[in-house]
Amino acid sequence: MKLSARNILKGKVVSVEKGATTAHVKIEIASGQTITSAITNESVDALGLKVGGEAYAVVKSSDVIVAVD
Amino acid sequence: MKLSARNILKGKVVSVEKGATTAHVKIEIASGQTITSAITNESVDALGLKVGGEAYAVVKSSDVIVAVD
Amino acid sequence: MKLSARNILKGKVVSVEKGATTAHVKIEIASGQTITSAITNESVDALGLKVGGEAYAVVKSSDVIVAVD
Amino acid sequence: MKLSARNILKGKVVSVEKGATTAHVKIEIASGQTITSAITNESVDALGLKVGGEAYAVVKSSDVIVAVD
Amino acid sequence: MKLSARNILKGKVVSVEKGATTAHVKIEIASGQTITSAITNESVDALGLKVGGEAYAVVKSSDVIVAVD
Amino acid sequence: MKLSARNILKGKVVSVEKGATTAHVKIEIASGQTITSAITNESVDALGLKVGGEAYAVVKSSDVIVAVD
Repeated sequence: MKLSARNILKGKVVSVEKGATTAHVKIEIASGQTITSAITNESVDALGLKVGGEAYAVVKSSDVIVAVD
Repeated sequence: MKLSARNILKGKVVSVEKGATTAHVKIEIASGQTITSAITNESVDALGLKVGGEAYAVVKSSDVIVAVD
Repeated sequence: MKLSARNILKGKVVSVEKGATTAHVKIEIASGQTITSAITNESVDALGLKVGGEAYAVVKSSDVIVAVD
Repeated sequence: MKLSARNILKGKVVSVEKGATTAHVKIEIASGQTITSAITNESVDALGLKVGGEAYAVVKSSDVIVAVD
Repeated sequence: MKLSARNILKGKVVSVEKGATTAHVKIEIASGQTITSAITNESVDALGLKVGGEAYAVVKSSDVIVAVD
Repeated sequence: MKLSARNILKGKVVSVEKGATTAHVKIEIASGQTITSAITNESVDALGLKVGGEAYAVVKSSDVIVAVD
């Protein structure tokens, strides 16, 4: 499946924390750079997400804010 | 200013393309890993974004989709 | 590729309108039900989107508002 | 009330699952096509959402990713 | 129509700028506080948005970032 | 830090409700106008958000829907 989302960053799952309905998953996409995602618990199960597994962080370009110091 | 957004990735602006009202800005956050952002032309001017400058890509965790192969 | 996004609706592309940097793509996901997507022109080209082709509309559950009359 | 959101899909609520603060609501918008929404528990109460009731799934076009096989 | 979106801020349209496909609309929701929205040109026409008219800025709570100095 | 997000509304925190992983924070940005934000519990702690404190509600213009009566 190819996606229109311009940002598809490959990495390794470093943490999976399930809440009541929402889970937080952290993916290390480069040494020292980690992306946190909030997804449904249901998705964690459907994808079989586990610490140490490979995963992608996918972000639509319209959801990226730019900042400068 | 400190942000609730969990993802604040520092990098270098590698391209700025203005459209009629919307601009696309690319930030290299690691060697070979670039994030594309769609922001208003107005923001490009307000932040003084230029190729070669430092910038951050900011993403709320609820806007990150996770994918696996 | 499997996605955490809970909403992956298959349909047929019924219109592709490119702007200066942003394109609008309409996908008919059921008889009489069309979903409009705003994506980059770049993505339209990368996916080879054309009227009549098959495509999916993908939406994260946190981006769905619920309304009642 | 008329909305700028281009996607307003009418359907029937088929499930409401409340979490600690976030609820997941599923709306069947066509035979076999269900949209999942993550909204606040507060909204579930304010809208009086119940299984079997009519509801709309509202999605802004900038939140729709397009995918192809 | 009642919405699950927790933020529905009433105001007056103070500017409408159409681009190639995307328009920017500014709504003054309080004295000196203006909200900018990026919507499709199509929506501007569908809603008949004009400077001086009443309008609401609608934002889902999961799209609000919090910041502190 | 300067942000590309066009909407940065200053106000006072009037409520902080933590859930299992997601918290809801309300910020009064004008007399009688409150913005609700859904952020991670982690962010509430990182920003030291407390009732009575100053905070900003930050919203990207592409996340603002416009509505009319």
